[in-house]
Amino acid sequence: MSSISAIMTKQETAIDPPENKISSSTPFNFEAYMVKKAKSVHKALDMAVTLKHPEKIHEAMRYSLLAGGKRVRPVLCIAACELVGGDESTAMPAACAVEMIHTMSLIHDDLPCMDNDDLRRGKPTNHKVFGEDVAVLAGDSLLSFAFEHIATSTPLDKVPARQVVRAVGELARVIGAEGLVAGQVVDIDSEGATNVGLDQLEFIHIHKTAKLLEGAVVLGAIVGGGSDEDVEKLRKFARGIGLLFQVVDDILDVTKSSEELGKTAGKDLVADKVTFPKLMGIEKSREYAERLIKEAKEQLAGFDQEKAKPLIALADYIAYRQN
Amino acid sequence: MSSISAIMTKQETAIDPPENKISSSTPFNFEAYMVKKAKSVHKALDMAVTLKHPEKIHEAMRYSLLAGGKRVRPVLCIAACELVGGDESTAMPAACAVEMIHTMSLIHDDLPCMDNDDLRRGKPTNHKVFGEDVAVLAGDSLLSFAFEHIATSTPLDKVPARQVVRAVGELARVIGAEGLVAGQVVDIDSEGATNVGLDQLEFIHIHKTAKLLEGAVVLGAIVGGGSDEDVEKLRKFARGIGLLFQVVDDILDVTKSSEELGKTAGKDLVADKVTFPKLMGIEKSREYAERLIKEAKEQLAGFDQEKAKPLIALADYIAYRQN
Repeated sequence: MSSISAIMTKQETAIDPPENKISSSTPFNFEAYMVKKAKSVHKALDMAVTLKHPEKIHEAMRYSLLAGGKRVRPVLCIAACELVGGDESTAMPAACAVEMIHTMSLIHDDLPCMDNDDLRRGKPTNHKVFGEDVAVLAGDSLLSFAFEHIATSTPLDKVPARQVVRAVGELARVIGAEGLVAGQVVDIDSEGATNVGLDQLEFIHIHKTAKLLEGAVVLGAIVGGGSDEDVEKLRKFARGIGLLFQVVDDILDVTKSSEELGKTAGKDLVADKVTFPKLMGIEKSREYAERLIKEAKEQLAGFDQEKAKPLIALADYIAYRQN
Repeated sequence: MSSISAIMTKQETAIDPPENKISSSTPFNFEAYMVKKAKSVHKALDMAVTLKHPEKIHEAMRYSLLAGGKRVRPVLCIAACELVGGDESTAMPAACAVEMIHTMSLIHDDLPCMDNDDLRRGKPTNHKVFGEDVAVLAGDSLLSFAFEHIATSTPLDKVPARQVVRAVGELARVIGAEGLVAGQVVDIDSEGATNVGLDQLEFIHIHKTAKLLEGAVVLGAIVGGGSDEDVEKLRKFARGIGLLFQVVDDILDVTKSSEELGKTAGKDLVADKVTFPKLMGIEKSREYAERLIKEAKEQLAGFDQEKAKPLIALADYIAYRQN
């Protein structure tokens, strides 16, 4: 543990927030926005996955899906939809689908044959409570249900079917062997390896983290009726904050305690995982994070700045969060 | 092993085929049809999942996906599409998606934490070759890729986007907590239980086997442009042959050797799994199978009988197969 405490600092956030985080004139109450949206998302998820027969599998799905979490991905989806002119109800099925995918990836990543984690969001992991077999199945079930939910709950009177098909394709690409799975498989391969470079580290995080954040934003933009140009700008924005998310996570992992994080701190060091602080040092990691947030925000320059506030605030939140 | 050999018989098929299996006047070369269609499906799958970076995961996906198998599900999908007036190329993405789902369910069911099988189609199971972690991920990847493939490869100039959305919803329902997963979770629960009844056994098999066969046929009918009435008739047909498939599987499991089956015979008895022969005896199981095929074929009565031949022959094949 001495190597961990050696690089621990006293500051609260991974990188220093600017004096005045939000530069625009009208104030934006980010906390109230997040609480409101997260509540809507939670309610929609609660209604989407009910406790029906066979109860055990639905209980396992609900256990992880409704465990809380900050709902960053679904809120990003809704915010992107609203930015291009859509509304919350139009985005909700896609937003819920993205959260289902996020949850399934956590359940499977935590399995004994993968990262073997006992704790997630301060609670025992899914397989610890329901057993490995049910945890694998709960993940499979959330994965397929995400697609069922988009396909059967997106309002076809507001979203042309062709856009729903496009959203399904985008979401699927985010998950598979060119998305989350690619990241996890390269991550597993790199554990304990001595020759992992920055390229490989970025590959892992782009695929494990950034792709799903990208999916969340892109799906919101698609179902919201954004133009191809809108979708591509928002894709770049999301890629940037996706990578930022992981850089900040890595910095927090070495600077915060387990209690503050709600998961085992320093685990990346113990497990011999490569991280940004390990590869480039903690100061260079912070500089990198600063550059990522700046470039991400530049993508939003062409949009209505009033409507862009939630996404700007979300980017700030990801950069300056404390856990 | 004495209990297994006691109920072994010498006949080649699970139930007695009628003298003249196909009653219509023009002969139909089922074997040639199957070989031709299975070859097209294999080629399409081979092209859909190529060996790209990260290679290990794509290799694992291809290992199970291209392991052979009779391609009953994708051929059912194509045959249903052709019956309602579509063509093979229209059905192919859906047909491949169904086979990807079938393959992922086998990979996950074989895992040590599930059925713990070492052998599948005469080859070592996926986790035996690639490790448990990669096997879980290969399954996840095939599951999401099935949706990507339908969404991005179905020709939108032939199939209205709304029908593609409907197909995605149908396929997803077949997999999750109301489909394959529901069957597997109730199956796991019933192992070693003493009070498993016919209702529960049928629930398991309808969900583990019949649902995906139903999905195959229904997806074919949807992308082929079938009317709602066509789709529902074909759904009933598929449900019947789906249950038939499992009844025949159970009979074969107690009457054939491992070598003939290409998997461990008598495994259901050893694992204390409930089966139709165990619950109703081998003769009553055969009678049940006879009734199921008769009722399934009745659903095809209203269609062009020439075009219905492949589906009738497929039903016969499922009933009278030897492994």
